Amino acid sequence: MFARLFAPTIDVHAHCDLPCGVYDPAQARIEAESIKGIIGKVKDNDDPDFRTRAILIKEERAQLVKHHLTVLWTDYFKPPHFEKYPQLHQLVNEACKIASGSGGVKETFDEAKADELLAKIDEIAEIFWETKKS
Amino acid sequence: MFARLFAPTIDVHAHCDLPCGVYDPAQARIEAESIKGIIGKVKDNDDPDFRTRAILIKEERAQLVKHHLTVLWTDYFKPPHFEKYPQLHQLVNEACKIASGSGGVKETFDEAKADELLAKIDEIAEIFWETKKS
Amino acid sequence: MFARLFAPTIDVHAHCDLPCGVYDPAQARIEAESIKGIIGKVKDNDDPDFRTRAILIKEERAQLVKHHLTVLWTDYFKPPHFEKYPQLHQLVNEACKIASGSGGVKETFDEAKADELLAKIDEIAEIFWETKKS
Amino acid sequence: MFARLFAPTIDVHAHCDLPCGVYDPAQARIEAESIKGIIGKVKDNDDPDFRTRAILIKEERAQLVKHHLTVLWTDYFKPPHFEKYPQLHQLVNEACKIASGSGGVKETFDEAKADELLAKIDEIAEIFWETKKS
Amino acid sequence: MFARLFAPTIDVHAHCDLPCGVYDPAQARIEAESIKGIIGKVKDNDDPDFRTRAILIKEERAQLVKHHLTVLWTDYFKPPHFEKYPQLHQLVNEACKIASGSGGVKETFDEAKADELLAKIDEIAEIFWETKKS
Amino acid sequence: MFARLFAPTIDVHAHCDLPCGVYDPAQARIEAESIKGIIGKVKDNDDPDFRTRAILIKEERAQLVKHHLTVLWTDYFKPPHFEKYPQLHQLVNEACKIASGSGGVKETFDEAKADELLAKIDEIAEIFWETKKS
Repeated sequence: MFARLFAPTIDVHAHCDLPCGVYDPAQARIEAESIKGIIGKVKDNDDPDFRTRAILIKEERAQLVKHHLTVLWTDYFKPPHFEKYPQLHQLVNEACKIASGSGGVKETFDEAKADELLAKIDEIAEIFWETKKS
Repeated sequence: MFARLFAPTIDVHAHCDLPCGVYDPAQARIEAESIKGIIGKVKDNDDPDFRTRAILIKEERAQLVKHHLTVLWTDYFKPPHFEKYPQLHQLVNEACKIASGSGGVKETFDEAKADELLAKIDEIAEIFWETKKS
Repeated sequence: MFARLFAPTIDVHAHCDLPCGVYDPAQARIEAESIKGIIGKVKDNDDPDFRTRAILIKEERAQLVKHHLTVLWTDYFKPPHFEKYPQLHQLVNEACKIASGSGGVKETFDEAKADELLAKIDEIAEIFWETKKS
Repeated sequence: MFARLFAPTIDVHAHCDLPCGVYDPAQARIEAESIKGIIGKVKDNDDPDFRTRAILIKEERAQLVKHHLTVLWTDYFKPPHFEKYPQLHQLVNEACKIASGSGGVKETFDEAKADELLAKIDEIAEIFWETKKS
Repeated sequence: MFARLFAPTIDVHAHCDLPCGVYDPAQARIEAESIKGIIGKVKDNDDPDFRTRAILIKEERAQLVKHHLTVLWTDYFKPPHFEKYPQLHQLVNEACKIASGSGGVKETFDEAKADELLAKIDEIAEIFWETKKS
Repeated sequence: MFARLFAPTIDVHAHCDLPCGVYDPAQARIEAESIKGIIGKVKDNDDPDFRTRAILIKEERAQLVKHHLTVLWTDYFKPPHFEKYPQLHQLVNEACKIASGSGGVKETFDEAKADELLAKIDEIAEIFWETKKS
């Protein structure tokens, strides 16, 4: 299992022109999985103080999701990527909005919303890995 | 001078539906002005330790520019704005890239680059205030 | 509106000796407006999780108010300013206390308290801009 | 490639009792890869300002490695893990020391040191995934 | 116990070889005392918003305890210390776990738990000052 | 002077009314000692990368000194303290200026400047402990 996890990383770096640095959408995904984990925990625990802590930690994790996604958007993706994937701007923007309040994961304990976030991150990751291969 | 500075803020809030919170592109602009200020100071000071501190502080300020701009992009601007201003995604993205390394203000003490950043922020601010008026 | 907002900035810089860097009390004011905005939102929303998030975000914003005000106090204002404005120490201190707990905005959703904070910041800003003009 | 990267994650979660939250040694590894990337870039660039920025960013990345490793050590690993893997305390401690100054990656641009860090993280990850499977 | 905690400080500074930097377990202790203080305040205040703020601030303080303790563990303590004090790894790990959720101070307002944390920190401090004296 | 600094701690804790929270000027002092330690290390090490790291870390430590001092000034000290110690505002302000650039520890490796900072912090600490005793 371990070998499988890190194996692709090696390939990737072979294709990575070092000036673009090391980026990995897994960073955003791990934080989003954490959000889903928090939501699951709150469902099984009716202590109000626990809920307060969950809100607080969920807020931080969602902020990290936004951070990692905007790093990809501002630092990794370049004009040719945006040309090749015209939906990319809107896709990252939508993912970030789901990682926010106003209808996003910050203001709900709805697991479906966390799944929506994970799905968006996976869409971005798919594009990311395509650009690394070429 | 003071009245002039804060006067528009009052108007703005009259047009602001409170659910959208308080946003202001001035936050990004002040940090970008600070970058320009740092560049000016380094020109007049050849102490290498001062230059090291200037690089460090410039890095932080540029990071804050990116933070404030991505907050506008992910939290303030909504789908109708992106429809009305189809250049908005690319505009914010370009401003963030100028606030980065790889040809941006983080890796240079070129004042023209800081001016380029300020001009981009002003373009975003102009759109921002238009959306507030309507 | 846009022109009016940024217009004074230009004058200011003409009078700013670059060694003193770029400072602007607008940074503290925007965060204080945000606190007022949060208080207004809570009034219209009785979801307890929303209130928890509001407390959390208000805490952060108030911390930023204190940060921006103490930056002015420790970095921008110099001994001659404190001599010319003997009330300045106490004024900044009082503003910071209103941005704290123990009777300040951190422990209340009272809009009047946010207005009190804004008024203090405006007093500081008035002195700030006076020192910039001279 | 994408499928391979995220595939194990799915298995993992199947074995994860949600109360223990979401942890992933990949977070430390990505930051350590970033350190290796930075070292590589500096080798090809003799601009002293670039080197200053590289030192600064390497410092931050190394700090993140230490953060992610100590999170595993204090939050994920439990007494039964330390009993089963008696070398675990020392292993994490050594990895953190390599991510520090005093002979670690913070004070060198030696690629071998970054490889040493990656190897230690992989050792920790191997134990981590073993504990997840059981 | 308290007198013992601060008394050795005097010797220490005389014996401190500057390359090892400045470390002081008092940093962790002050944050842990703060946690105890917060717990005491909540006992006398039944405002739910106050409790929310207390949870939030307690979370931060506990995080700082963990930070200061892991700094000692990764940066100050060296292999000879771990050899001489074979319980040291587990001791720091236990203190960090008490400063966490899952049975630690983050999820309770039980004063006894804060005392337990303080006692663990004092144990670490005692070892720390012993290593400084020799 | 050093003995005096920690000696009162014993009294203090006995006299501390918990509503005022836990404050301790030792936090600022430890960071200032760290600055002095950094300056000493640089004197014995002529590696330019080491100097860059020292500048960076000194900047952070000085920032923490300012943080801990302004916390005392905005949160701990109350109007009666400022009345009883009319020099207190200026004293804290001067200490913060020494912890800054523009003639302060941030822009120098002069040990005398670090000693000046330590002396100012000790003056503040002396007032602090006096207010705790009464």
